[in-house]
Formats: sequence, C-alpha cells, structure tokens
Amino acid sequence: MPLWKVYHPAGAYTVQDKKDLSERITGMYARVPIPKFYVVFIFEEIAEDSCFVGGEPNNKFIRFKVDQIARTLPGPVMREWWVRTLDELIAPFVKERGYDWEISIDETPFDLWSLQGEIPPPFESVAEKRWVKENKASAYTPAEKLPVNLMFNPGIVDR
Amino acid sequence: MPLWKVYHPAGAYTVQDKKDLSERITGMYARVPIPKFYVVFIFEEIAEDSCFVGGEPNNKFIRFKVDQIARTLPGPVMREWWVRTLDELIAPFVKERGYDWEISIDETPFDLWSLQGEIPPPFESVAEKRWVKENKASAYTPAEKLPVNLMFNPGIVDR
Amino acid sequence: MPLWKVYHPAGAYTVQDKKDLSERITGMYARVPIPKFYVVFIFEEIAEDSCFVGGEPNNKFIRFKVDQIARTLPGPVMREWWVRTLDELIAPFVKERGYDWEISIDETPFDLWSLQGEIPPPFESVAEKRWVKENKASAYTPAEKLPVNLMFNPGIVDR
Repeated sequence: MPLWKVYHPAGAYTVQDKKDLSERITGMYARVPIPKFYVVFIFEEIAEDSCFVGGEPNNKFIRFKVDQIARTLPGPVMREWWVRTLDELIAPFVKERGYDWEISIDETPFDLWSLQGEIPPPFESVAEKRWVKENKASAYTPAEKLPVNLMFNPGIVDR
Repeated sequence: MPLWKVYHPAGAYTVQDKKDLSERITGMYARVPIPKFYVVFIFEEIAEDSCFVGGEPNNKFIRFKVDQIARTLPGPVMREWWVRTLDELIAPFVKERGYDWEISIDETPFDLWSLQGEIPPPFESVAEKRWVKENKASAYTPAEKLPVNLMFNPGIVDR
Repeated sequence: MPLWKVYHPAGAYTVQDKKDLSERITGMYARVPIPKFYVVFIFEEIAEDSCFVGGEPNNKFIRFKVDQIARTLPGPVMREWWVRTLDELIAPFVKERGYDWEISIDETPFDLWSLQGEIPPPFESVAEKRWVKENKASAYTPAEKLPVNLMFNPGIVDR
C-alpha cells in the first residue's frame, strides 16, 4: 500500500542501510496493522548535479515521496502524529548523517489498486487478517470480505 | 493523460516488449476513446537490491504507477472493471514471466495539465474528437470546446 | 512544496540548463510568495527507447510531473493562468529546442508533509514569513503560527 520512493545521492546508502530503513518503516505499518508485503520501497539514485533546492544545486538532499493507498489517516491529530513518527524513524538515515531531507505523503484511491492480480480486501476484513497472517496476496471469498468484528445490531448490543 | 511509470528489474523487458506493452495499453485507452498520444509510458530500471517488499529485498518486482488525468472513472462498477481489465492486459508481462507485481492508479486534476503548450480540450468536445483523429495536440477555437452531441433542450427532445 | 520531477532524454540538459530552469521556476514560486527552498527539482534521464507516446517510441519527449503541496490553486481562472504561466517559463527548454513535452500538476495533502523534520507553518503565518526571509526550515513557536495580518474582528473593523 505504501509505496516509498527514496531519491538519494549516489552512495548514500549501502544495501544493508536500505534493508534496515525499509524494515524499520515496514514494522511501523505492520502495527496499523496491514500486511507487511503492502510496504514497497524503491530506492533511486539522483545523478550528480541533478537536484536543485530553491534554485541551487544540492547534492546532499534526500527526498521521500510516499503514496499511501490502504488507509486514509483520519483527522488532524493522527495525521500530525504520523508525520512526526515517520520523521523520527527516518532521522538516523538523514539528519544523523548530515543530509537535507523532505518527506511528503499522498493518499491515492483504494479502489484503483491491485496486487498480484488480486484487488486487496476491505479494511479490517477476514481476508485482510488472513493476508496479514500469510503475508502474501491470494484469492478470497465474498464471505471473507466481511469485517472481522461483525455485528448486525450496531449500538444496541450489550458488549 | 495517463502517465504509466513502470519500475522494473534491469533486463526484464526488451525494447520490443516495452513497445508491445505500451501499444496494448494504449489500445485500451483509445477505446474510451481518448487520443492515443495522451498515453505515455516511461520504463525505469530499478537497480539491483534497491527494491524491498515487506522489508525483504525483491529483485523480481515490477511496480506500475499510473496517473490518470483526462477522465475520472465513474462509480465502483467501472472502477473495479478497469483495474481487472488492466490486470489482464499486463498479465503476459508480469504473471506469465514469474514476476511479482503491483499496480496503483491516481487521478490527478484535469485542469492542471497541458500538452505541447495546449490545455487539452473538454471531455467529448469537438476539439477532443479532432485530436483523436489527428493524434496530435493543436490549437482549437472556443466553438470547438462545445460537446459533439450538443442539445439545448436536454430531456425534452424526442430522440 | 513543489516537487518537480523532470524526465528527459540523456544529454538534453547541461548542468547550467538545469540550474537555469530550476531558478526560473523557483523565481515564480517565490512571487506567491513561498520560501524558495520549498522548490525542489529532480532531473532524471530516461534511458534510450524507454519512453513511448501513443504506443510509439519517442526519444525526444520531456515529461514534467509536479506535486504542489504548500498551496492549492483557488478557482478555474487562477488554475488556467498558472498552467499557462508555467508553459511560458519552460518553453525555452522544450518547445524552442524541438522537444515534445507534457506537464501535469498534482495537489497533495498539506498536512502530510515535513521538511528537515519540521512541519511547515500555516499559509501566510508569521513563521512562514520568517522561513521566506531566512530561506531555511527551523523550529517555530505556537504564536508564530498566527497569520501575519491578524484581526480579531473580521469584517467589522474600519480598514
């Protein structure tokens, strides 16, 4: 669901760095919880003298461009918390290494998305829980599209 | 209108493959119908060990990231049909070659877009039909911005 | 705020060209006014035979893909004016050099964005004005989040 494009100067990250950063962020999304395999990182080198900030060349700039698809962040409190949380998680890979950086997140349509040819199951559905557990996309039945916590009488049942 | 970014491992596609895939998808958009030259494909190689899915390196992953501008898909039935249709069209280039893959579509503002310095004409306008026919952008008159099927008395004319 | 991705054929631009284009566009955004360092350009070469327009290879195509975050363009008049203005500014780098080109702008969420670990201050706030002046991100106080032109009695004060 989230696609993280990481634009970075050549040599900024080793393969281990890339793995560490993607694992760290994946772990955060897994706490939502969403299936781990929803989280995709693509690292891309910016060629020398091909990045400009404010009209000036900046060869120490790292730009994170994120598309979130599976969930929309509800409300200003959650949205600010999420941005600050991601900033803390990426800090060791940018701030603590002397890079300049910027991150922006877009929220793209849930219903214009598919994985391995399967349309992802609804939010908190039986099928989504199974995808979390199996950590891969697979076919699901109409019954599995129902929410895991199903109530036919919302609000009037004594819980 | 649609911009297809295809992120793929080095060597995944020959030039002929790229042409075949772009032709196939262009053909589908042409049936909407929209001008063929609206459909742009940019193929981009992902460097070795620069793609991570669920925190694990995946060097067999192909990510399609699509921006659709000229049309908004109306309603859940059309939207699901469109995603499934694209999945079928790309299958020979991903599933049938043993790749993992994911596709997501964003719908970006129609009114913040231009081609060859021309702002694309309205949906189903006389000018758009001319652009379809000529398959290139050109200046158009205010009169050409009117719909091809023009009625001044909608709903009360005996068709 | 705006992230300009410029996809271009290899060798299309010298480093000086890139600097000139980014300066020119940055100057326009600075007139909004927004801080100059909000404007980020990333130039990216498209490999030979990796760009297809309407299903045909086009090795002379330049695609500008812009994300605007700090401001939403209000209303159709401003939106058309902005597209036409950008088209004029980029003309010397595309039209006048014989390239084909296309530009599209997306508007992504203001509240899912941060710079150097700081969440950008509100539109026309005291802090934003300070960021414009200092041309870099820095911490700001809650009081600096207030608008520079502050009135407690909107509409009933004799100006």
